[in-house]
Amino acid sequence: MKRVKLTVAYDGTAYHGWQIQPEGDTIEEELNKHLSELLREEIHVLGASRTDAGVHALGNVAVFNTSARMPVEKIAFAMNTRLPSDIKVQRSEQVADDFHPRFCKVRKTYRYQIWNRAIPNPLVSRYSTFYYYDLDEKRMQKAADCLKGRHDFSSFCTAKPDRPNHIRTIEAISVERSGDMITVTITGDGFLYNMVRIIVGTLLRVGGGQMEPEEMKTVLEAKDRSLAGDTARPEGLTLVSIEYL
Amino acid sequence: MKRVKLTVAYDGTAYHGWQIQPEGDTIEEELNKHLSELLREEIHVLGASRTDAGVHALGNVAVFNTSARMPVEKIAFAMNTRLPSDIKVQRSEQVADDFHPRFCKVRKTYRYQIWNRAIPNPLVSRYSTFYYYDLDEKRMQKAADCLKGRHDFSSFCTAKPDRPNHIRTIEAISVERSGDMITVTITGDGFLYNMVRIIVGTLLRVGGGQMEPEEMKTVLEAKDRSLAGDTARPEGLTLVSIEYL
Repeated sequence: MKRVKLTVAYDGTAYHGWQIQPEGDTIEEELNKHLSELLREEIHVLGASRTDAGVHALGNVAVFNTSARMPVEKIAFAMNTRLPSDIKVQRSEQVADDFHPRFCKVRKTYRYQIWNRAIPNPLVSRYSTFYYYDLDEKRMQKAADCLKGRHDFSSFCTAKPDRPNHIRTIEAISVERSGDMITVTITGDGFLYNMVRIIVGTLLRVGGGQMEPEEMKTVLEAKDRSLAGDTARPEGLTLVSIEYL
Repeated sequence: MKRVKLTVAYDGTAYHGWQIQPEGDTIEEELNKHLSELLREEIHVLGASRTDAGVHALGNVAVFNTSARMPVEKIAFAMNTRLPSDIKVQRSEQVADDFHPRFCKVRKTYRYQIWNRAIPNPLVSRYSTFYYYDLDEKRMQKAADCLKGRHDFSSFCTAKPDRPNHIRTIEAISVERSGDMITVTITGDGFLYNMVRIIVGTLLRVGGGQMEPEEMKTVLEAKDRSLAGDTARPEGLTLVSIEYL
């Protein structure tokens, strides 16, 4: 029996998120189906991050046990000949028998892309959110700086009653413009439900001038979801990497 | 009566190319349909470049006449509320009554993207070609340099009997790597049928070591299609811009 860790990239456009649903295709379901066929035993993966419908990943993580003889590093290549073009395993490796993708100390990085121009660009619209009005990325960076460090992020979280601990650490958060594309990159030790998308929704208010950068601190300290911005749309979000420490 | 020039961007994945076909959706058809509905008169656009099935564009050009009163610069915005998300008009402007998108002196730029890694990346696979084996972009640039200038490009052309003139000028051609992505960018006064894709197919042979960079000159001078490489796949190709001189 071996425990295998897969690093998985996917375009989430066509999926109802990671987690198996009664209706609609999911990433988890595709992995289970093709792993089970490939290894000829029933496989149920354990995912690191249950990304929402429409969210993308370059490096989500799935773990499973197998007694199949196939060399572990070949599983990535064998899976990629079976998987659809919008899901590809980037790496397969053996891990310790007690490795759990969710209950370990990690460093996660997300990026959120905003196409900030009066006209949408169909070559980037699957992986970014279109924002018509001018955004000032320097104001957005100033507001983002208020979020760095260890805080209670209740203001930036869609409530889930079963997860009462809202304290997380943001190690780094940057807002960079390259032409018409603004990219927000956030690294931290974990993220609450919808946390990145609500942070981005609030940064959009700052960037568009409806909120001052300094007010970000007030919103954070209030621990009140109603003071933060809207949850930004899913298509702009990509889970870039999960580093196990 | 006004003559209007549209600059059009599209993700070609779902289309059977630019030109109207008996079967399958085309870019030309989508533009004709939505322009006719918007302006309430029958519109048939004249395209600058008849891109093939699966090829993308950031700046293809379509021209038509209209007697509608709508201000010309508003047509782009009005069209974008009607067009599907994978086709968007970037700009609409009035041009001279005798302006023809194909019979003018132009500078066209194409780019071709190659994802050069052992594992495909689903977040770039719509807009690039996957190439498993290592490519040496410096060798590719050396070969590409042989093509600069005014030449008979018969070796890099799928024959069309009705277009006997195969002399074109390549102003610039660059091969650049950024991480796992190699981008070939070509600017010239016009391109023969499949010319960019055959040039890239030949550069792939050079980059992979099956052909020496200097042999590119021999292939060019032979004016023989059979000496060049395969026609590279369509999804890597994007028509970036058409500049009217």
